[in-house]
Amino acid sequence: MKLSLIAAKICSAVPEGKGDVEIKSISSPKLAEVDDITFLSDPKYKEQIDCSGAGAVIVKKGVVFPGKICLEVDDPYLGYALTAQLFEDASPLFGDGIHKSAFVDPSAKIDASVSIGPGTVIGADVHIGANTRIDANCVIERSTRIGESVRIDSGAVIRYGTIIGSDVLIQSGAVIGSDGFGNAKSGAQFVRIPCFGIVIIEDGAEIGACVTIDRGNFEPTVIGKGVKLDNLIHLAHNVEIGANTAIAAQTGISGSTRVGERVIIAGQVGFVGHIEIGDDSFVGAKSGVSKDVKPKAKITGYPARDFMTMRRIEACMSELPDLLKEVKRLKTELESLKNAANATSV
Amino acid sequence: MKLSLIAAKICSAVPEGKGDVEIKSISSPKLAEVDDITFLSDPKYKEQIDCSGAGAVIVKKGVVFPGKICLEVDDPYLGYALTAQLFEDASPLFGDGIHKSAFVDPSAKIDASVSIGPGTVIGADVHIGANTRIDANCVIERSTRIGESVRIDSGAVIRYGTIIGSDVLIQSGAVIGSDGFGNAKSGAQFVRIPCFGIVIIEDGAEIGACVTIDRGNFEPTVIGKGVKLDNLIHLAHNVEIGANTAIAAQTGISGSTRVGERVIIAGQVGFVGHIEIGDDSFVGAKSGVSKDVKPKAKITGYPARDFMTMRRIEACMSELPDLLKEVKRLKTELESLKNAANATSV
Amino acid sequence: MKLSLIAAKICSAVPEGKGDVEIKSISSPKLAEVDDITFLSDPKYKEQIDCSGAGAVIVKKGVVFPGKICLEVDDPYLGYALTAQLFEDASPLFGDGIHKSAFVDPSAKIDASVSIGPGTVIGADVHIGANTRIDANCVIERSTRIGESVRIDSGAVIRYGTIIGSDVLIQSGAVIGSDGFGNAKSGAQFVRIPCFGIVIIEDGAEIGACVTIDRGNFEPTVIGKGVKLDNLIHLAHNVEIGANTAIAAQTGISGSTRVGERVIIAGQVGFVGHIEIGDDSFVGAKSGVSKDVKPKAKITGYPARDFMTMRRIEACMSELPDLLKEVKRLKTELESLKNAANATSV
Repeated sequence: MKLSLIAAKICSAVPEGKGDVEIKSISSPKLAEVDDITFLSDPKYKEQIDCSGAGAVIVKKGVVFPGKICLEVDDPYLGYALTAQLFEDASPLFGDGIHKSAFVDPSAKIDASVSIGPGTVIGADVHIGANTRIDANCVIERSTRIGESVRIDSGAVIRYGTIIGSDVLIQSGAVIGSDGFGNAKSGAQFVRIPCFGIVIIEDGAEIGACVTIDRGNFEPTVIGKGVKLDNLIHLAHNVEIGANTAIAAQTGISGSTRVGERVIIAGQVGFVGHIEIGDDSFVGAKSGVSKDVKPKAKITGYPARDFMTMRRIEACMSELPDLLKEVKRLKTELESLKNAANATSV
Repeated sequence: MKLSLIAAKICSAVPEGKGDVEIKSISSPKLAEVDDITFLSDPKYKEQIDCSGAGAVIVKKGVVFPGKICLEVDDPYLGYALTAQLFEDASPLFGDGIHKSAFVDPSAKIDASVSIGPGTVIGADVHIGANTRIDANCVIERSTRIGESVRIDSGAVIRYGTIIGSDVLIQSGAVIGSDGFGNAKSGAQFVRIPCFGIVIIEDGAEIGACVTIDRGNFEPTVIGKGVKLDNLIHLAHNVEIGANTAIAAQTGISGSTRVGERVIIAGQVGFVGHIEIGDDSFVGAKSGVSKDVKPKAKITGYPARDFMTMRRIEACMSELPDLLKEVKRLKTELESLKNAANATSV
Repeated sequence: MKLSLIAAKICSAVPEGKGDVEIKSISSPKLAEVDDITFLSDPKYKEQIDCSGAGAVIVKKGVVFPGKICLEVDDPYLGYALTAQLFEDASPLFGDGIHKSAFVDPSAKIDASVSIGPGTVIGADVHIGANTRIDANCVIERSTRIGESVRIDSGAVIRYGTIIGSDVLIQSGAVIGSDGFGNAKSGAQFVRIPCFGIVIIEDGAEIGACVTIDRGNFEPTVIGKGVKLDNLIHLAHNVEIGANTAIAAQTGISGSTRVGERVIIAGQVGFVGHIEIGDDSFVGAKSGVSKDVKPKAKITGYPARDFMTMRRIEACMSELPDLLKEVKRLKTELESLKNAANATSV
């Protein structure tokens, strides 16, 4: 790939006479070779790049590596991401078109550019937009709508009625549209409550491997634009995730909780149902969140508290055994002081 | 659907002359329209129903909505669940019968009323009872027994020898009968212990998406009647879950632990192995349970403690930084008081 | 199976004249019958064995059960594991060879002894070694390498380029080689970072059901020799797990963290990225680990601390409500003592 193409993608100037240099691939600061491009997103990797054979480097404006071509940008990490996308092989893993071992219901409307892998099942009344790629042994149940340039990896299950926008990525083993966990009681027995709702996944959202997203009831479960979900996350019925929110692995969100936009949620967090998590908030790993969270709040712990408060509490916990001894000592001293005072006063 | 049919299902009287009113669907208090039925399970939704166009409402005995047909019951939430079941479309997603792209071993015994979706694999010596529905790309391994009116959603894997009762629901991505995590040691190396046991899922139990249930060893892993499991739960080998117990998402239970009947377990809880969780107990979210739990106990936290005790401890934790300062101050004061006393006594 | 065969496998002497005794199966101390062999790995099961009809028992050297054949070994639990392996039926669940409903790309190189179950999909340029068994509805994506005597259970997904050694076991629903969770930011929007790396699973490793292992970036994610992973574990991109380490269910490890050899990690633990977990360390259940862990360290809690320290802190937490009251009382007493002292001094 010509350097000029990369420069155009990342909005960098091309050093004079270097536009036609051929770059074979992108690599890490440590491993890059002469026909590779790499990136300096953290000064600590400077020495690795100095020592590596990297021919080209994406750098922050003003940074220089003598003898290497430098593409200067405002944010080299973003430059790296965009360049990596250029080098990504996004071609279907099992070839173009509909594989002969796939089953596609005759009523499905599938753009001619779609690829569908072996063993994949497409139900009745499914619509799939241009350039979408569905790999092997997936199931797309009836009446699902899938936009353009969507990637659905092998083994994902999209249950009936799901609406998926464009540029969405759904990884292997994910289950979209499972039943919600709703039960009434009749004496000691639970009575299942069927869910009359769907899941909506908006443009640009990404769903990790073995994520489960329950369908809504009456109203939909909604994954907003550009949301990023890591692996093994559980989202219950009627959860709403606002645009550009990111959630790390193994987090679970109970029914009807609404997470705002641009929220960052770390791994293994749990949320009770029916609460609101404000825009631009941050929730630390393993937190248990049982109340509304204000916009821009930074919370952690279980029960979740303000981040700095929680850090102080955690620090104090280490002193707890000493504190108990100290209080016991104070008590004894106070006692003897009282006795002495009594003796004096007598 | 005629109102009289709904009334019969939920054991409500039919207001005079209204039995033949046609109800199109069930809807939420907020969204219900004139030919919908809705329900008032919590007084806070009263206003929504007043404002909605709902033609009929399931209410607690004595509650009245002027201009709307009211079906009076003891428990409107139960009435709602039962009515929702009436409106549920339980027909197979991929048509009746055995799909031509399914593989069914010739030795399997399958009732004529069973539906098996595309790409589903049925192993040797599998028996499947009447009205059971298995959707697409499932695997039912050899010698599995499945009762009547079972629903197995697309992509579920039922491993060999599993015994499933009637009216069971197993959601997509669930794995039933995986190997237990048992290892002996030979020097530094682990030596795998094969499991000679099965999983039994009793009548009316429901298993969420991507739940994993390990097969037992010598004796079975048992999911009791009417048990409800949310998504992404892990049950290890030889776990037993008593009847009518409900477990929320992402909880894990280690080997040979026995959970009683009518237990409620919240999300992301962990249990060590070989303990007993008493009937009618309650375990709060994110708890870590390492000891037996008494019947009717209500515990939470890690290590899990009595619910009220834990709430008190949590409240105290917030005061910990102030407490440390206070004790330091007391110490200083006590010191100066001692010095003063000494000075006086001299 | 002849007793002599079992004795040979577990390196035990055969009691005189008993080598030809036929053993039908291995069973538990409680259930063993006359033609079964069982084991005494814990003295508490001695009575069960006395009462059982077990014909033969694997025991620690010197232990005697009158009337039963005793095979003496150094470690009866290891003896049990090895004997159980002898009795395990490891034959393919769906017959030998490549099932007619499987799809195998013509460019795949598959040993004649391999079994591939119904509905399984094998991509281009996949190599599979002798005696490997892949059950139903699996996906093995292109350019994957699989060694000898590997077992891949129904419904597992092995994504492109994965390298799997020999004697590896991958359970149902596992996803190997999912994309890493890496994102740059462009304003409020995330920009996905494609991963240019693979997953390597070394000889003898075992991967539980619904485990997700992300592919590395530039360098591989590595699961070392003999590693044992329980169910529903998440390993992020570029994680490395050292040989003979065992990890219990629902644990998650963030990107680039390196876990040493012979480490024991309990369930529901979370690790931040880019840290080192030393050889032979132990991490307690539900811990949150955010710093390097020294070799042989034993830690637990969140934030994780030395095991004994954490136990002391936990014990102190129970006393916290009383401590607060005590300090308040001390304060009052001190106050009155000061007042008394002031009064005296006046």
